[in-house]
Amino acid sequence: MRVDLNCDLGESYGVWTLGHDDEIMPSLSSASVACGFHAGDAGVIRRTLKLAKAHRVSVGAHPSFPDLAGFGRRPMALEPEAIEDLVLYQVSALAGMAAAEGLRLAHVKPHGALYNVAARDRTVADAIARAVALFDAGLVLFGPPDSCLIAAGVAAGLPVAREVFADRAYEPDGRLRSRSLPGALIVDLTSIGDRVIQMVEEHTVTAVDGTCLPVHVDTICVHGDTPGVPALARCIRTTLEKRGILIAPPSPPQL
Amino acid sequence: MRVDLNCDLGESYGVWTLGHDDEIMPSLSSASVACGFHAGDAGVIRRTLKLAKAHRVSVGAHPSFPDLAGFGRRPMALEPEAIEDLVLYQVSALAGMAAAEGLRLAHVKPHGALYNVAARDRTVADAIARAVALFDAGLVLFGPPDSCLIAAGVAAGLPVAREVFADRAYEPDGRLRSRSLPGALIVDLTSIGDRVIQMVEEHTVTAVDGTCLPVHVDTICVHGDTPGVPALARCIRTTLEKRGILIAPPSPPQL
Amino acid sequence: MRVDLNCDLGESYGVWTLGHDDEIMPSLSSASVACGFHAGDAGVIRRTLKLAKAHRVSVGAHPSFPDLAGFGRRPMALEPEAIEDLVLYQVSALAGMAAAEGLRLAHVKPHGALYNVAARDRTVADAIARAVALFDAGLVLFGPPDSCLIAAGVAAGLPVAREVFADRAYEPDGRLRSRSLPGALIVDLTSIGDRVIQMVEEHTVTAVDGTCLPVHVDTICVHGDTPGVPALARCIRTTLEKRGILIAPPSPPQL
Amino acid sequence: MRVDLNCDLGESYGVWTLGHDDEIMPSLSSASVACGFHAGDAGVIRRTLKLAKAHRVSVGAHPSFPDLAGFGRRPMALEPEAIEDLVLYQVSALAGMAAAEGLRLAHVKPHGALYNVAARDRTVADAIARAVALFDAGLVLFGPPDSCLIAAGVAAGLPVAREVFADRAYEPDGRLRSRSLPGALIVDLTSIGDRVIQMVEEHTVTAVDGTCLPVHVDTICVHGDTPGVPALARCIRTTLEKRGILIAPPSPPQL
Repeated sequence: MRVDLNCDLGESYGVWTLGHDDEIMPSLSSASVACGFHAGDAGVIRRTLKLAKAHRVSVGAHPSFPDLAGFGRRPMALEPEAIEDLVLYQVSALAGMAAAEGLRLAHVKPHGALYNVAARDRTVADAIARAVALFDAGLVLFGPPDSCLIAAGVAAGLPVAREVFADRAYEPDGRLRSRSLPGALIVDLTSIGDRVIQMVEEHTVTAVDGTCLPVHVDTICVHGDTPGVPALARCIRTTLEKRGILIAPPSPPQL
Repeated sequence: MRVDLNCDLGESYGVWTLGHDDEIMPSLSSASVACGFHAGDAGVIRRTLKLAKAHRVSVGAHPSFPDLAGFGRRPMALEPEAIEDLVLYQVSALAGMAAAEGLRLAHVKPHGALYNVAARDRTVADAIARAVALFDAGLVLFGPPDSCLIAAGVAAGLPVAREVFADRAYEPDGRLRSRSLPGALIVDLTSIGDRVIQMVEEHTVTAVDGTCLPVHVDTICVHGDTPGVPALARCIRTTLEKRGILIAPPSPPQL
Repeated sequence: MRVDLNCDLGESYGVWTLGHDDEIMPSLSSASVACGFHAGDAGVIRRTLKLAKAHRVSVGAHPSFPDLAGFGRRPMALEPEAIEDLVLYQVSALAGMAAAEGLRLAHVKPHGALYNVAARDRTVADAIARAVALFDAGLVLFGPPDSCLIAAGVAAGLPVAREVFADRAYEPDGRLRSRSLPGALIVDLTSIGDRVIQMVEEHTVTAVDGTCLPVHVDTICVHGDTPGVPALARCIRTTLEKRGILIAPPSPPQL
Repeated sequence: MRVDLNCDLGESYGVWTLGHDDEIMPSLSSASVACGFHAGDAGVIRRTLKLAKAHRVSVGAHPSFPDLAGFGRRPMALEPEAIEDLVLYQVSALAGMAAAEGLRLAHVKPHGALYNVAARDRTVADAIARAVALFDAGLVLFGPPDSCLIAAGVAAGLPVAREVFADRAYEPDGRLRSRSLPGALIVDLTSIGDRVIQMVEEHTVTAVDGTCLPVHVDTICVHGDTPGVPALARCIRTTLEKRGILIAPPSPPQL
């Protein structure tokens, strides 16, 4: 049994630092690296790639809408062609910089609003999948289970990885519980460990009302800007390893 | 006998168009494509690459200081590491987008102020050469003859191409005549044709005072924003071909 | 009888030029000047203000979503507070630069996607109106007749100006005919002149199916990037003046 | 006896935070607020202005070269006209946003590389002074004693404030000791207090070799990104107040 453990990294910019990349990296099997459009100037990208290399962590591109001021979290109504071009540009930049460090890009995970929009809008998801497939049809596309993003990846012939969030609660209908509601975020490390094991071993997750939902997990995400995330990442890694579960990048093809 | 004929293309941005790419492309053997930092958003880059492909023109990256408002023409005092990272990012983006069109990047030519600074500042030139060599040591680095840029390229083990400008006058000491002085720009097509033949066949150029200067030319540049440049490019191509000179991308290694 | 004739100007950026400001300006009574977020760097803004001053044309701010690459034409899902802050920043910048030329800002007209979104989304419209009222409650807010933008302006105590487009066809329900449909753009100058007179004198417009719709017009817009717009603006001005209609900036309060 | 105590604030951007504005503000008499070109988006500017207002701290604009990625610390070779326009734009934006909070802009202090270049380059200093005088000839221009910036301000008819740094050592020739040399930064709070009192009361400063240099101080700067700066600012304020020195914004005219 195996699962990937990923985090969004390289989200500093110029003098501004964000996240705890040095502390989180050792716990991960995959790092999604910002490409300069929501965060991550060229110097930050390079340092992040070197850090991933030092810890033998697999790297992926984390492309975004072009919105530094909004950190890529604000949906933008771009034409599909514009999205395809933007994703291709960002994946290319990341892949080339990775190659210069002797690393091969392994996956692509859209960031923030682009991820959320692509999860439910097939046109946007298809544009992203086209860009990835055009660049390298061996790249694994990350997306939420049962999302348009995963469907678009499969249709484009890409390997895909279904991603869940270790510390987020689910509604009975399978959606993530809104952050504006109580109980949306799970903070107890033991509970998080139990949930992760249940998702990986039993392919289920327990919703807020106790309902048991089916879920297929290829990669578990911890958010780089969650407080205490280094401890959270270490806890998940240790918990999974104790159960004999291998923490490793998704091995395509997944589906 | 052979020489390359290149032009800076893809310098539109969003709704703003610049240059006459469609008309110039058929005359060229190489196109230097803006990478998004002084001009050229992802959509413009892609259209430019498709156009180059359609005309079987070799493509290169045209990286710049990060300065859209100044079109990369204003020197910026960046640390060498920052320059190395910026060039690596831009070359990577261009190369990946070219690969997606089935094209292999052939050369790198710094743009505007970055080109001018690197021509005379060896530290900046070395930073650029390091980035190019790190990405692909087979890429040809373009620069003025006898410049720091060419020296840095050679030292980094890169093939290089010595570039001259078809329509610019030279001072007796070998420098380009300043645009603020009379006679800096040569506009008569016959004169330009004669000069180009002299440079390619005799390896000399006649300065403004009549002095005959030695010059070694691997590539001839026409500026995309010069008025009448499509006619100029066609004239140079025709003139050279009539003399039996092959117009083709620089074949590394040059030196 | 009087009406304002306005155009979006100052939409060049750095080396890139757009529009025909020099030719259009003499025909206008108001100019809406780009503020740097979709177009218009500080140098362009200043030249545009000087040009307006030379022709005694009233100036307004033309704030936008922050999207140079998309020319402010792509809706962005910004929080109302972010919109209020962005509009306040842009109006402030324009007003201060106008004051430095001895001009007093007279109006605010949101640009592109911000205009379209605010026309139908009261929350966005209120955010814009708050910013304008906070800066100067004497500024006239431009918007489509019967839009959320006009309603928000009135609610915020601002003078408003209801804007129509001289060369666009209307559907029977009062909306602008989509540019993707035939007949959306009216190109015949005589027809445009007739329509403008009808709108100003009779307060009606004839829809594509012949229906006569009521419309109240305070300002007529010609688009700076429409081909032939200098002639169009001159034609409208001449046509109106021949009927004895005064072309002048909206005189607040309008409603 | 009186002196101003100022700090650069509002240097966060989007999700990225920098500095300790909340803790420093209560100790200051003046705040120099980033204008969006090196830091400080519109939301950050507004929060900073509200904070200054709450603590009755005088506000000024802190304009910069347009360089978010480099935090305005990298000199750019801009034409004087471009600098004048950029400063005018940024001062206008800040002044308008301040007015919306009921505040009147009191000073202008160029940021980072623009400050350093203007200190020794009279052409750049004159461009800045022209922009400030054009906007409001009552604004106080901050600059180092005996600098081109102060000279340009005086020549332009502006009130000026000569600025020193509380925690930096001086060479015998009056220049700031380079940060790359030992002893450049003074960290002992008692020493800093003594130096500040000496500068304000005796108009002298002791250089690293013991030489006593004359210095005229109108405003003392603490850097917002120095570690421990809130304690430093409080210490300076307390030390000065104990000596009966009034901490207040510079009262123009200074010279």
